[in-house]
This record gives sequence, structure tokens and C-alpha cells, in this order.
Amino acid sequence: MMGENMAERTDDLQLKGLKIIQNTDGFCFGVDAVLLSYMAENAKGDNFIDLCSGNGIVAILLAGKTKAKKIYSVEILESQSNLAKRSIELNGLNNRVEAVNMDLKDVSQRFKKSSFDVVTCNPPYMQQFGGIVNPKSEKAIARHEIACTLEDVIKSAAYLLSPQGKLFLVHKPERLVDIFCLMRENKIEPKKLCMVHPSKGKKANIVLVEGVKNGGRDLKMSEPIYVYADDGKYSEQINKIYRRDEYK
Amino acid sequence: MMGENMAERTDDLQLKGLKIIQNTDGFCFGVDAVLLSYMAENAKGDNFIDLCSGNGIVAILLAGKTKAKKIYSVEILESQSNLAKRSIELNGLNNRVEAVNMDLKDVSQRFKKSSFDVVTCNPPYMQQFGGIVNPKSEKAIARHEIACTLEDVIKSAAYLLSPQGKLFLVHKPERLVDIFCLMRENKIEPKKLCMVHPSKGKKANIVLVEGVKNGGRDLKMSEPIYVYADDGKYSEQINKIYRRDEYK
Repeated sequence: MMGENMAERTDDLQLKGLKIIQNTDGFCFGVDAVLLSYMAENAKGDNFIDLCSGNGIVAILLAGKTKAKKIYSVEILESQSNLAKRSIELNGLNNRVEAVNMDLKDVSQRFKKSSFDVVTCNPPYMQQFGGIVNPKSEKAIARHEIACTLEDVIKSAAYLLSPQGKLFLVHKPERLVDIFCLMRENKIEPKKLCMVHPSKGKKANIVLVEGVKNGGRDLKMSEPIYVYADDGKYSEQINKIYRRDEYK
Repeated sequence: MMGENMAERTDDLQLKGLKIIQNTDGFCFGVDAVLLSYMAENAKGDNFIDLCSGNGIVAILLAGKTKAKKIYSVEILESQSNLAKRSIELNGLNNRVEAVNMDLKDVSQRFKKSSFDVVTCNPPYMQQFGGIVNPKSEKAIARHEIACTLEDVIKSAAYLLSPQGKLFLVHKPERLVDIFCLMRENKIEPKKLCMVHPSKGKKANIVLVEGVKNGGRDLKMSEPIYVYADDGKYSEQINKIYRRDEYK
């Protein structure tokens, strides 16, 4: 029989020696988590919270990139939250990063209203319409809106954010109308939009949105990100975002 | 003294011999009008209406590009509407295109509800916050939300569109949140988004949005448009959009 640890691997994040423990049977982080932490890395403030945090990748990257004093990593799946706890320990980040195994719909039971400067979230991308996915599967929970909807995420963020606090969200362009409308309804005004394209000339397939609690109306575009260069290799942009140590 | 005609010029649209009369003291058409007609050119239906139509450029381009039987060109400024009338005459399009000099907020007085398959609009881009612009200036009315707001445009479009009819809008990215929220509020679901960039790697500075009356939720991205190529000349994409006759 394969042991549980057989599916685990530990990856070097190429940022100040940070590492992440991942379960390859579960959900491993991808370019979206890296892009999300990139978009949030210049945000100011002491208190950060990452929702739908999986194995804790975004919280750990932000611990390496920002001066935040405390970063919570909220995840509903116990197995993923346990991986996050072990990665936090492995990186010696216990004093700054804390994995919390809970349903983000219950944040008001654990956290004070308006107590965070920054909320980040890489939510499940796929809407749940029928019974084709196994609702108990960890991969399904990470990918589909089974345990929480986009509206749950944005409502929780609105509760958690301080006035002028920032929400950073990574999602698919298909949901951009929902994102904008739900953010505005919940008084988080979309202020920055970055479109991520597989390469130049290709349709954007990831959106990064920055919203400000109680912010005024004025959306700014960021320069587009192209993941691959013309030669099919990672673009210089992505190399700079991924391999921070080399590019310092 | 300079005569009124001194500021006029007639331009060849490089599309089936069509021409446009413009007043260079007023507001001459730009890349946005051409992109708008490009986005709408494959729309099906007999009845089209262009709002905020200025000198009639979009209606005339759509007459050349589509099989629409009737295209109305609605403009509040009499001088611009008169130019449109003369261009329609000059192009022998009187049987298909009609310039209507009216305020788009009054469309219900002139047109039947749900009577159009396609609504196009290149509205004034700039919001009106103070007294810095001259509200009587033709250029100011074309550029600023003096005579109509974005909400007026979308409400009029919602009145005019048939069920499943399409709205095509060109605007600045700064207003994308307003556009999406107002369209959804008025039951015109944004279905397609095209970002237009000055060149590859540069921030988008124009958005093209296609909405469908009573449409389901699912935004699709179009391939991005880059106006200039790396050599600083118009891109091949733009040449194909502009100079249709040569590229047929």
C-alpha cells in the first residue's frame, strides 16, 4: 500500500529559502497563487489574511515578500490546513503565519470586523451546477464552488477589511462581471485590473483584481502579463515574478 | 472671415467607396468608432441603431459591413446630425441609413420598445464633475457626460433592444465596473470583452463590450487588439480593420 507521504513533495519557492510541502493527490499551487502574491506584495499593513488558502502557499509567499506582522491562512480542508501548518513550521514562520482550519463563512466567529489591512483569495474557479463532481473530493472542493461561492468570499472579505483595506483576488475572466458587481455591492470598489495572457496576442485566461474597501470609483489597468514568451519558454516577466532570488 | 465649410473635409473610408463628411472644428471620428463597427460587424438582424452617433461614422460603416435593412443614427447635436444626413446622401444610403437629431433619453417617444436587433454606442468618455468645460461646446458634448450619462445610454439601449438583441459599446477601461454593473442592472448581460492596447505590453486604453439582452452569465474574452506594431506603425490587425478593401 502507498503511504500518505508517498504523494508528498517539498518544493523550494526560490524566495529567501522558503519551502512548501504539497500533496500531489490534493491540489498543488500553480501560477495563479504566485501571481496573486505578486499583486499583493506591495500592499501596506500589519494584518493580512488569505482565504481559500489550500496548503498555505500565498501566506508563505507573502511572509517572504511583505513586512506584515501577522498573516492568517484560512482553509476549510483539514488535510490542506495541516500541510500549511507543517510548511509554516518548516520555514520557521510560526510567529508571523498561522494556519486556521475553518469555513470562511464563519470568519465573524473568529476574527473582529474591519481588523485586516489586506485580504487575499484564490477561490475555487468553477461554478457548481450539477452532480458531476464528487463533493467530498479535495480536488473538487479546491476547484469548484462547493464549500463556498464567490459571493461568500467577497462578503467575508468585506467583513474582515478595515476602511481602505485591500482585497486581492485571482480568478477567471468568465467571472469578471460577477466579481465587479459583487465587490461594488459589498462596498469593495475594484481599483486595479491586471489581465494575464498565456502569451502575446492570446486571450487573457486569468484576471487579477485589486479592490479597496469604501474606495472611490476609478478602475486602473495594469500592464498585461504574458506567461510564455514567443519562444515557448516562460517570459522574462514570469521569471522575475517566480525566481525572485535570482533577479534581485 | 473663415467660412463654415473651411473646417470641413471629406474622407474616404476605404470600404466599398464610402465617404464621411467631417467638421474639424467639431469632433472627428477616431479609432474607437472604427473598432466599434468592427466589433458589431458580424451581428445579425435587420434593425440597427447607433446612439451618440456624431457625424454618423458608425452607422455608415455598418451600412457597408452588414446586411442591416435599416440603421438609425441618433445624435443630439444638430450640426453633427446634419453632417450625418449629408454623408448618408453622399453615399446614396438614404434607403438604409437615417440620421435622427434627438436626445437619446427620449428614444421611447420615437421608437418602439424592443424593436432593435443591435444597438451600438461610442458615448462621451469623460465624467462631468465640475464647471471646467463649456457645456455648450460641441467638442465638450461629444467628450463629456453633459447631454447624457453612461446610465442614460444603457437604459435607452435596454428599452430599444429586442430579447437577445445585442449592445456594442466602446469606452475607457476606467469605466468597466460601471459598464458591467449598469448593464447587468438593466438586463443586458456582458458576454464579450475585447481589450485594446496601444501596443503589446502596454496597458489597455480602450474596451469593447458586447452585451446580450436577457443573456445568461458567461463573459468571454476576445483576442486583444494592439493598435501599433513594434516598429511604431499601425499593426497588421488595425490595417485589416481599417483598410478593408485592400485586405479582402
